[in-house]
Amino acid sequence: MHSEKFSKDVSSFFRSPVREIFKRVDLNAIYSFAGGYPSADTFPLEAIRETMSEVIDKYRGKAFQYGATQGVPELRDAISQRYGVPVERVQITSSSQQGIDVCTRILVDPGDVVLTSSPSYLGALQSFRSYRADIRGVAHSSDIQAFQDAYVAILEQVKAEGKQVKFLYMIPDFQNPSGESLTLQERQMLVELADRYDFLIVEDSPYRELRYEGEHLPTMYSLSPDRVIHLGSFSKIFAPGFRLGWAIAHPDILDKIYVCKQSLDLCPPIFDQYVAAEFLKSGKLDENLAKSIELYKGKRDLLLDLLEEFMPEGVSWTHPEGGLFLFLTMPEGFDAVKFYDTALDAGVAYVAGEFFHPDGSGKNTMRMNFSFMTREKITEGVKLLASLLKDC
Amino acid sequence: MHSEKFSKDVSSFFRSPVREIFKRVDLNAIYSFAGGYPSADTFPLEAIRETMSEVIDKYRGKAFQYGATQGVPELRDAISQRYGVPVERVQITSSSQQGIDVCTRILVDPGDVVLTSSPSYLGALQSFRSYRADIRGVAHSSDIQAFQDAYVAILEQVKAEGKQVKFLYMIPDFQNPSGESLTLQERQMLVELADRYDFLIVEDSPYRELRYEGEHLPTMYSLSPDRVIHLGSFSKIFAPGFRLGWAIAHPDILDKIYVCKQSLDLCPPIFDQYVAAEFLKSGKLDENLAKSIELYKGKRDLLLDLLEEFMPEGVSWTHPEGGLFLFLTMPEGFDAVKFYDTALDAGVAYVAGEFFHPDGSGKNTMRMNFSFMTREKITEGVKLLASLLKDC
Repeated sequence: MHSEKFSKDVSSFFRSPVREIFKRVDLNAIYSFAGGYPSADTFPLEAIRETMSEVIDKYRGKAFQYGATQGVPELRDAISQRYGVPVERVQITSSSQQGIDVCTRILVDPGDVVLTSSPSYLGALQSFRSYRADIRGVAHSSDIQAFQDAYVAILEQVKAEGKQVKFLYMIPDFQNPSGESLTLQERQMLVELADRYDFLIVEDSPYRELRYEGEHLPTMYSLSPDRVIHLGSFSKIFAPGFRLGWAIAHPDILDKIYVCKQSLDLCPPIFDQYVAAEFLKSGKLDENLAKSIELYKGKRDLLLDLLEEFMPEGVSWTHPEGGLFLFLTMPEGFDAVKFYDTALDAGVAYVAGEFFHPDGSGKNTMRMNFSFMTREKITEGVKLLASLLKDC
Repeated sequence: MHSEKFSKDVSSFFRSPVREIFKRVDLNAIYSFAGGYPSADTFPLEAIRETMSEVIDKYRGKAFQYGATQGVPELRDAISQRYGVPVERVQITSSSQQGIDVCTRILVDPGDVVLTSSPSYLGALQSFRSYRADIRGVAHSSDIQAFQDAYVAILEQVKAEGKQVKFLYMIPDFQNPSGESLTLQERQMLVELADRYDFLIVEDSPYRELRYEGEHLPTMYSLSPDRVIHLGSFSKIFAPGFRLGWAIAHPDILDKIYVCKQSLDLCPPIFDQYVAAEFLKSGKLDENLAKSIELYKGKRDLLLDLLEEFMPEGVSWTHPEGGLFLFLTMPEGFDAVKFYDTALDAGVAYVAGEFFHPDGSGKNTMRMNFSFMTREKITEGVKLLASLLKDC
């Protein structure tokens, strides 16, 4: 027997090429620009140990019991205060990946259109595909009119097809994979389009607080609080191992997430939520965040310098003002998927940009992470990658 | 605007009446036989604190980083050894509720049949409904031939309708809500039917290790390892606040769960997994489990004695050999949903049995939990409930 015949057609689930890499090699044994791991150096182990002990003293058995589906009140309050939103608009999620998945589950029927930027975050594309969404990607253009025209063309086309755009998925700050951010004007344009064409926006913001230069821009949520579902995450500002995130949205939308989460996992991990709440309220999170920003800014600057020094002609890259990634474009005709085996055999990993493009374009691109490795490994890794690229 | 128009039809998601109770009242302020909460007295706070500190020392940053989608190797190994199954058959889940939900997501298309016992676990019914499964409940019969005939009748009917049974969902040990267990003969009969009619079995086993009398019976998984997906949970043998469970199944099925979990939440909470692994391997879990069994056995015996002493004539109940629940049957015509407001106003909560019946029958039944409250509150609660029942 086995499962094939029992299973529904799960071809819409696809494997993350990033996680497939992790199965093949030990990330610590190679030069890995793949993955979106924060540096383990940013995890404040002693502060965490202390906070954990305090949580046990303060909450006793309650810290290990079942809890509210919306999240523990202490953490919802802390998020509400930090981001200046009413607490009834805060739902804690068991990872912000779950936030993406739950939004898709409550909003998307098979064939419904989800708009994304192209390229976009792979884990979101995976989730949209698993619900058989019709994903339409829009490439960024620095000319705002051309950018708007590209959206309008797709929105009109979808209308002509008699289909419905359920939401636009967007990472406005230091996008994964490109590292680029939307300007204020672009944010306003998209929010206006959402009004005019009547769709929601899922704003995914895991990197927002990791800014190394430039001014903070308003969230899309703040521009249109009833039309935007804002997703936040502790993974990059605290530690991903807790698997905790949050959704900020209109209470009607949160109510749907709430009933969905009841059958999904009942409630997020309780002890971890109390630890995160204490960490936030005590100011330890901000202290630690400042250190992370300093560390990552240095690594970003190093990577930019190294690329400038070592990359062969014809290779270009983005200049991210924050976040964990930058995006490389090789000359036309280069195939980053094909080149991947060569790179991995030599001991250096990246993620081919093609995987982030809903239409499979971007074959000559790759994503590079600069948060995970040490400065020494970043240096050696760029030298190795550049020499391989020169030889190919 | 708001969400109604953007949302797909989420009427198939329904609210847990148990969680709605929690919204209305503070469980600690009333006599609550509702919920399926373990006693917070069973959470070994000092041992947990110590283990957490050990995990930080042993794993350092790794304990807070992203981890493998299948779960951390240390916990998969510990489960593999404890239950005598190959490690490649073990997937860690972010709660065993997620195990149920993921099985449904990878196996069930709208309209596919899921067989369950009637009554059955509410959280499972919620998940099946959210995927628009066609749920067919089968009442238990102590006559094995009649029990088998009831299943065969439904299986033949489903076949005649041209539909497909994707799986049978079963809690063979100390079922939620009835407290009853399947005999070995019944387990064998169901496994044989699964072979004959070619369906899978999802065996949900959160209570299995909480046995207070009688002999352990083989799991359904052990009777048919390639056809049964076995779901386990730390919620009742350790602490629910960690939201950790596991699935044991044929590697082909686990592979589907693996890709599904990539877009669902990437990986289970990492630190919590290491804590659970250390707790298992050190023998602390078994030490603590022995204490829980002693505590719960005493509470079960107390509840049985109190029901005998105080319940009015015409009320009967099950005699569970383990687990957290027993099931009350009132005289025909009694409506446990209607009676609920009276009970809650007086300060005592239960869950109406109707909610556990896929076809809405069982109006004269209720589920009582005996793990959560102290012995004193159980005593006062039964006296109060019995006096209300006498008056109605």
